[in-house]
Amino acid sequence: MIGEGLAAALLQHADIIAARVGAPVKLAAVADKDPARLDIVRAQDPSVACMDDAFEIVTRDDVDVVVELIGGVEIADRLVRAALDAKKHVVTANKALLAERGAALFALAEANGCDLYFEAAVAGAIPVIRVIRESLASDRIDSVRGIINGTSNYILSSMANEGAAFADALKAAQEAGFAEADPTLDITGGDAGHKLAIIAGLAFGARVLPGEIPTEGIEQVDPRDIQYARNFGYVIRPLAVAERVEAGALDLRVHPALVPEGDPLAHVDGALNAVAIQGEMVGPSFLSGLGAGAAPTATSVAGDIIDIAKNSLVGAPARSWNLPAGGDQKLQALADLSSRYYLRFSVRDESGVLAALSGKLGDSGISIEQMVQDVDYGDEGTATIAMLTHHAREGDVRDSLHAIDDTHLTTAPTHLIRIVE
Amino acid sequence: MIGEGLAAALLQHADIIAARVGAPVKLAAVADKDPARLDIVRAQDPSVACMDDAFEIVTRDDVDVVVELIGGVEIADRLVRAALDAKKHVVTANKALLAERGAALFALAEANGCDLYFEAAVAGAIPVIRVIRESLASDRIDSVRGIINGTSNYILSSMANEGAAFADALKAAQEAGFAEADPTLDITGGDAGHKLAIIAGLAFGARVLPGEIPTEGIEQVDPRDIQYARNFGYVIRPLAVAERVEAGALDLRVHPALVPEGDPLAHVDGALNAVAIQGEMVGPSFLSGLGAGAAPTATSVAGDIIDIAKNSLVGAPARSWNLPAGGDQKLQALADLSSRYYLRFSVRDESGVLAALSGKLGDSGISIEQMVQDVDYGDEGTATIAMLTHHAREGDVRDSLHAIDDTHLTTAPTHLIRIVE
Repeated sequence: MIGEGLAAALLQHADIIAARVGAPVKLAAVADKDPARLDIVRAQDPSVACMDDAFEIVTRDDVDVVVELIGGVEIADRLVRAALDAKKHVVTANKALLAERGAALFALAEANGCDLYFEAAVAGAIPVIRVIRESLASDRIDSVRGIINGTSNYILSSMANEGAAFADALKAAQEAGFAEADPTLDITGGDAGHKLAIIAGLAFGARVLPGEIPTEGIEQVDPRDIQYARNFGYVIRPLAVAERVEAGALDLRVHPALVPEGDPLAHVDGALNAVAIQGEMVGPSFLSGLGAGAAPTATSVAGDIIDIAKNSLVGAPARSWNLPAGGDQKLQALADLSSRYYLRFSVRDESGVLAALSGKLGDSGISIEQMVQDVDYGDEGTATIAMLTHHAREGDVRDSLHAIDDTHLTTAPTHLIRIVE
Repeated sequence: MIGEGLAAALLQHADIIAARVGAPVKLAAVADKDPARLDIVRAQDPSVACMDDAFEIVTRDDVDVVVELIGGVEIADRLVRAALDAKKHVVTANKALLAERGAALFALAEANGCDLYFEAAVAGAIPVIRVIRESLASDRIDSVRGIINGTSNYILSSMANEGAAFADALKAAQEAGFAEADPTLDITGGDAGHKLAIIAGLAFGARVLPGEIPTEGIEQVDPRDIQYARNFGYVIRPLAVAERVEAGALDLRVHPALVPEGDPLAHVDGALNAVAIQGEMVGPSFLSGLGAGAAPTATSVAGDIIDIAKNSLVGAPARSWNLPAGGDQKLQALADLSSRYYLRFSVRDESGVLAALSGKLGDSGISIEQMVQDVDYGDEGTATIAMLTHHAREGDVRDSLHAIDDTHLTTAPTHLIRIVE
């Protein structure tokens, strides 16, 4: 998919690229295990070598830059290593590869005097890598918050716009081509976790593996949560958050979150992605655009290729950017997070329940900011209490909710969504 | 102002910058005609040479990059030329200089093998130059629309939020430090015109002087326009627009415009700037951030310095980016613009007036999309008719309004604001 978009960009925009770089950038060879997919390239430019073994590309003399768009970790890892060993620069859009093996690959690139670029690996067309690494190179970054999984955002947006349940919205997203046949990595937050690990490295010099990042998917979001959030003045978005909480500690997490309606992230609808960066000197910086799709993602890949071409042209063998010095950064445990929370309780429709609930929350130091109580017409004898809390420590909130759910007060496990503002 | 911010960034973030670049970037010398303003630099780092003549800096052996933050055209032009002649790279935040003299300065930089960077000249902290020139280097850009004058946006925002008249909002903006003592260049659109000329060069290879760009200021926006626009579902923003309308013709303009509430530009409030770029392959790309202020703007300047430092470190003498091939691009005359319009008529409060008005508009091929009529309580015997038109050619609309204003139907000149969507 991205490969087709990239071939189209390089062939159809060859004049634009040559004008920007000051020299032509030639698509020398393409490989796909399904050779029929290369017909479109052959038809446009018969001089491009077409092959079914990508490993043959990395040793060609007429190749300076190898672009890896295979996806997955193992074969991509071998291909990138083979390319770097052959002293080819590499451009990749593979977030899983970089999140899992990035440190070793960057070291290998440096040892071989090659560049390893990866703008397309995070947030598709949004130039978040370039902006953090180059535009904000002088600044101390305080936080990066983003909607970096388009599938999740598309599903939550259609749940909000059409009142659909999660399963129906997922099915519609699959039919519309905005979710894969196996959407697990997207809806569980795994994909966003890969991207956040890369962002944390760039912004904070943190070396974290995706598995270390607390991650929650969007499957637990109920249309009622979206409705209650809206009544409170919030929108539910699938967020990835990376924040410096105190010297040496980083708060990294992926989860659906209530975002205030006035926040730029609240307006990022459908399959759009967005990244909000807060820097000590730059202040708030916000980027949005298409997070997926062949042509938009190919634009990011092409930008990397052009950067490398520019390097060669001006006589620089490579121009790799260093990560900021990270030092020993420990991750903040979720239990230690200080946040405001949205809570939805399913309770017996009896007098005294609300008083008992707020009493128990108050005993744990959790104070209620706003609250609404509704009788559940579909389920006789029960009611729903939705509330926003003031700031509280997450461990205290969880403990209190466990204690409450162990009593007769609630009829189902209480639902918690973090507020990010 | 920006100079102080830059000195602070270079001195206080020296460790961050050294880590990113891979080598230290040393602030060697600073100049200000008021030496007292350099005390703050002296206090932080006594090794920085402080002087009152900026021209002494450009010939120093320990200087590789000269940063011009003087503003204005003539002296800045001389300083930049002197620096380039001395084979120093130059970073400038001076939009007027680049808009008026850019072509000659870039040619001089190239002849001397030097780089001339200018990220801070357009939209302060927003990395619009880098994104258009590098991230989107492979794409054919269709349009760039931006809020690129923070003072105008601050004034229109406070008119909208507080119902203030223009003069009062301007005065409040001056007191709050968001407008200069002489705000002419900001509120007339002149400043945005300078920046748009630079953007048009980068995005379209157009060589236009600011004086060639149709420019309207925000002085004519009335609180009633903001109110009517809101009722129609729009926000009034100070826009700069650069669009490719047909092969070889460019639509460039600066004016207040009605923007639909759902557009990302509608949410850019206060002193924030934003740029929305539409590319053939990348689709919609949106950037926002602080458009002014010492620290945010200094971040952009520092990013340029770091880029140049990186070049030197990897052995590239310079790495200047070419403009796209522009060819012969003529500007579209405003009369030929096809747009929707907001019109506000002051009319006699008599029966038949609306019918006569719509008849005359219809005769010119202008059709009304929505309309509202209000009696003017402050001015007996008059009423206001506000409407949105369907698409029409601006020349036709202007002709029709002149004809209408020549009749007895209107009691004051009719007010027109373009809709941008």
